[in-house]
Amino acid sequence: MRNSSTVADIGEHAVIEHIRERVPPLPGEVVTGIGDDAAVVEPDRGALAVLTTDTLVEGVHFDRDHSSPTDIGHKALAVNLSDLAAMGAAPRHALLALSLPADWLVADLDEMVDSLLALAFRHRTTLVGGDVAASPGPLVIGVTAIGSAKPRRVLRRNGARPDDIVYVSGTIGAAAAGLAALQQRSHPGSAPSAACRRRHLRPEARVALGVALGRNRAARACMDLSDGLSDAVLRIAAASGVGVRLDAEALPIHPDARAWFESAGLDPVSAALAGGEDYELAFTSPPAFRGRLRHVRRRIGDLPLTPIGVVTKGRHVRIGRGGKDEPLPRGYEHFPGVG
Amino acid sequence: MRNSSTVADIGEHAVIEHIRERVPPLPGEVVTGIGDDAAVVEPDRGALAVLTTDTLVEGVHFDRDHSSPTDIGHKALAVNLSDLAAMGAAPRHALLALSLPADWLVADLDEMVDSLLALAFRHRTTLVGGDVAASPGPLVIGVTAIGSAKPRRVLRRNGARPDDIVYVSGTIGAAAAGLAALQQRSHPGSAPSAACRRRHLRPEARVALGVALGRNRAARACMDLSDGLSDAVLRIAAASGVGVRLDAEALPIHPDARAWFESAGLDPVSAALAGGEDYELAFTSPPAFRGRLRHVRRRIGDLPLTPIGVVTKGRHVRIGRGGKDEPLPRGYEHFPGVG
Repeated sequence: MRNSSTVADIGEHAVIEHIRERVPPLPGEVVTGIGDDAAVVEPDRGALAVLTTDTLVEGVHFDRDHSSPTDIGHKALAVNLSDLAAMGAAPRHALLALSLPADWLVADLDEMVDSLLALAFRHRTTLVGGDVAASPGPLVIGVTAIGSAKPRRVLRRNGARPDDIVYVSGTIGAAAAGLAALQQRSHPGSAPSAACRRRHLRPEARVALGVALGRNRAARACMDLSDGLSDAVLRIAAASGVGVRLDAEALPIHPDARAWFESAGLDPVSAALAGGEDYELAFTSPPAFRGRLRHVRRRIGDLPLTPIGVVTKGRHVRIGRGGKDEPLPRGYEHFPGVG
Repeated sequence: MRNSSTVADIGEHAVIEHIRERVPPLPGEVVTGIGDDAAVVEPDRGALAVLTTDTLVEGVHFDRDHSSPTDIGHKALAVNLSDLAAMGAAPRHALLALSLPADWLVADLDEMVDSLLALAFRHRTTLVGGDVAASPGPLVIGVTAIGSAKPRRVLRRNGARPDDIVYVSGTIGAAAAGLAALQQRSHPGSAPSAACRRRHLRPEARVALGVALGRNRAARACMDLSDGLSDAVLRIAAASGVGVRLDAEALPIHPDARAWFESAGLDPVSAALAGGEDYELAFTSPPAFRGRLRHVRRRIGDLPLTPIGVVTKGRHVRIGRGGKDEPLPRGYEHFPGVG
């Protein structure tokens, strides 16, 4: 029988207990976990600390009609692990900040936390602390993730050099197709595949890839695709002071996404470039690093790494398509300006 | 002339730029600050990392009618610095997660960030990253603070031993009086002093005290008064497996708070014990540590440290008052349960 208590019924301290009792035994480097004023951890010796925070807001990043508590808990951590992966950092610890509507069911809370912890366990990440508050409006779930990387193994955005090859992992476009379909039920396109919907609802962070790129020093610049491939390429180019020329034909657009974009009358290339939330990694690597990339490929199973363009000297970012060359369109903004 | 643009007018990237351009030059240990997928910092050599996160939600923790953007920015960081102080950790880095209503003015954003950064600067804390999202409801401001403490210098809740003296810093009750007065304009009490209102709106974290207690190993257990003195004493006792006997006459109740509680027909002792958000520190220290405490006092200016009770062997937590001894009433819950 499903427990019908709400979080307001049981109160802040009981909510924290519900979370704490779900956390597996602490690893040795965690001196103090949940339950004191702050968590205490022993940093990896000789390593840098990599810090990121990302928040999911109900009605902005997810909708309770479409996202289950399992989806929400998974994604809240995944988007943070993706940021660490983009820096070449191995995830180590996480903090969870929950602002909960009073009518949230304890059963939903438990499901969300279990899902977050399952993903954390897969990536050897320990939930060491957090904060629980009431929300008079949306559910807000903030995660801070702390990772570890050796000096000179950190991947930044500003290291791309002319003649580097631009790679992207996995496939692109599926999350955007999944989201568009959820938002526009009456859209002319047919329903996109379960793979597309799942990609939006429960993305995978490319942790093994990011860590392997960093440890093998196989990339000169790297970024995740939280805001889409266009955005990532434009930012790497701007930060590095270089240009990029992408090849539209080379883009690894997810076949289901391509089919759905076409059925909806959209250009698959533009849609896949602009679509956010693929949580793949884009990186640049010179041809001379081919041996290092081979080491990386051994660590990432069957995740494809596709060359999609080249870094250029001029600061123009362009995409070649059917013999023509055009400026790369700008990507997606989570929080669009109108000015 | 005050800028009347809203955050939605300028968009996510411009909001991040507004924050980034306000951050002072980065200290040497910050390898990467705002503007990459994550921040990168060099941990203090031989130190533990102390991690905490605390979120302020509009309508729950503050009200825009009473709290200015300057108040909100200050308090969002102060409550986190207080958690680090309670662990004996020196604050080092912070991350800021903002969920912003679309109608928030850029001028208010700037004021809030300037205030947070002014407090950060005073405590040698660097804002290294964060996240900006839209909010369809309240303003939500989450801060993660990362501090540093040497091993065996960390202050926890569970170290209190029988015959330790219980101390509290500063004064108690002022924040509760300030909050109650703001919430109940028509309350029978006269208006509380500006000092009480300010204590609620813009609390000071006891950073110097926490760090000095840790470095001098002058406390066996420590906690901050975010949820009130009763709550702190009960938790230290429970975590340490001991009892405590407080002396009501010894409590350093703020004189303005005492006057206001009395004018409102409330018992000042009960109100000051239950009132949250004083952000003082409660700690225990055996008589033999008197020399260490002298070193601590030299570091904290004129902040008083008042002995208010003693740790006992039995697990009862009691307060003596007018020759009578009664159980210590339970404290304040930010997120009250009704069950």
